[in-house]
Amino acid sequence: MEWISKSNILIVGLGLIGGSYARALKHLGYHIFAIDAKQSSIDYALQNDIIDGGFSYVDEDCVSSADAVIFSLYPGVFKTWIRENQRLFRPGAMLTDVTGVKSSVVYDIQAMLRPDVEYIPAHPMAGREVYGVENSDGQIFKNANYIVTPTDKNTPEAVEWCKCLGRLLGCRRISVLTPEEHDEMIGFVSQLTHCIAIALMTCNDNRHLVDYTGDSFRDLTRISRINDEMWSELFLCNKDALLRQMDLFADEFAVLRALLEADDREGLREKMRLSTERRAYFD
Amino acid sequence: MEWISKSNILIVGLGLIGGSYARALKHLGYHIFAIDAKQSSIDYALQNDIIDGGFSYVDEDCVSSADAVIFSLYPGVFKTWIRENQRLFRPGAMLTDVTGVKSSVVYDIQAMLRPDVEYIPAHPMAGREVYGVENSDGQIFKNANYIVTPTDKNTPEAVEWCKCLGRLLGCRRISVLTPEEHDEMIGFVSQLTHCIAIALMTCNDNRHLVDYTGDSFRDLTRISRINDEMWSELFLCNKDALLRQMDLFADEFAVLRALLEADDREGLREKMRLSTERRAYFD
Repeated sequence: MEWISKSNILIVGLGLIGGSYARALKHLGYHIFAIDAKQSSIDYALQNDIIDGGFSYVDEDCVSSADAVIFSLYPGVFKTWIRENQRLFRPGAMLTDVTGVKSSVVYDIQAMLRPDVEYIPAHPMAGREVYGVENSDGQIFKNANYIVTPTDKNTPEAVEWCKCLGRLLGCRRISVLTPEEHDEMIGFVSQLTHCIAIALMTCNDNRHLVDYTGDSFRDLTRISRINDEMWSELFLCNKDALLRQMDLFADEFAVLRALLEADDREGLREKMRLSTERRAYFD
Repeated sequence: MEWISKSNILIVGLGLIGGSYARALKHLGYHIFAIDAKQSSIDYALQNDIIDGGFSYVDEDCVSSADAVIFSLYPGVFKTWIRENQRLFRPGAMLTDVTGVKSSVVYDIQAMLRPDVEYIPAHPMAGREVYGVENSDGQIFKNANYIVTPTDKNTPEAVEWCKCLGRLLGCRRISVLTPEEHDEMIGFVSQLTHCIAIALMTCNDNRHLVDYTGDSFRDLTRISRINDEMWSELFLCNKDALLRQMDLFADEFAVLRALLEADDREGLREKMRLSTERRAYFD
């Protein structure tokens, strides 16, 4: 095995997404190593040929021989890892991540990072309602959006490298946004929708309705099966943007309620026509 | 079985659902006739062998030769039709409907109806985001719930007849609820979800986000493409139950918002665990 080469990629955090990166990139011929606190995840990945090598601790040789490091950790753990282990990076190493929130992560990490390595942040918008490397899937990125969120500290080369990584994964659309644009967008299209699904599921002990639910209820609540440890952290990391989006939605919902209470049929129809017209853009 | 002898079926209102009844029942060998104000719907149905005969006006012979009549009309039009044309029914005729709200329709119609015919209300929980007999599909009921909502005025024989109709259509599950139970349930699982989808679509001019939306946003807003004429009437016909459900949801959404604002991570996680646990019942 050519341990020292341009193609040594280290994945830190071998869960659903980290494992899916491993599968997709190994399939393309890269040498993939992984570090994950769970020995069972490393064992599974080795047994299933998802990685070429792995450790349940921070193996110094493994980190220092990586040309690129992909972090698939929760925001807080990610920062701690960088603080404690960045001395091990090979000079010139390229770092990226998969974190679903950006402003609260990107600036802190870039501020503390050694000047001879570069961290270019990214977010592949892919996920499942299942977890762990056991459920990872190299095809998960096939219809996903992939967003690179550089700051002033990033070089054009790193942005290109990161976009290229998204293309290698097979993502459908590669975009570049600022961390703030990303967080506002993700607050709306992902976090707000999860809040709605949770509230719909918890507002009423609806289990006796299971026999009457059609597709619409099931569609709206599919994402209410949620990893509470991860999502509570993501919500809090994006608190301001998410609160703004929640307020926008709650205000509009109250308007709809007022139209109904006032028997304002034309007002209701106007809202329905607007939603119909807008939704058409998404098909 | 009595149903077998009643082989002349008249469908009043030949849209998506009326047309789907026609297809499913004609396929089983019944003689299907239809009345719809749109001549083009009748023409289409005749040309495509969906019905055996049809009229764009109330043909007296057609009505009086029907053993069973299925109404697939908006609530207001349904009541008017009965008031104006009930003199034409054959004595002993069995009437049913597909209306998505019950209390506001069922009692009014039963109160005005001739004593020698029986109206047994039903609601097949099937639908599409498209309209018209042109989009009708006899398979639409295959995974649907079918709910019979009798009152004190209904005979056990009519309830059985109506359940049998649901089974003939191929519905997955046949239930009996009171009109009030039906309306409370439908307020939650269907109308509230549509209100949420509409508000999510109209709270923000989100068309620029089309490139970033993943499955969750698309799932939550699929039903925001909505027939404003029909749904505004259904919402208003079920106003009290729907307002109750909207308030339950809005209050719970506000609780979630307060937890986020207060950085109450454990409180957020508790809600997420509850939603995850409840949602598991629906899979």
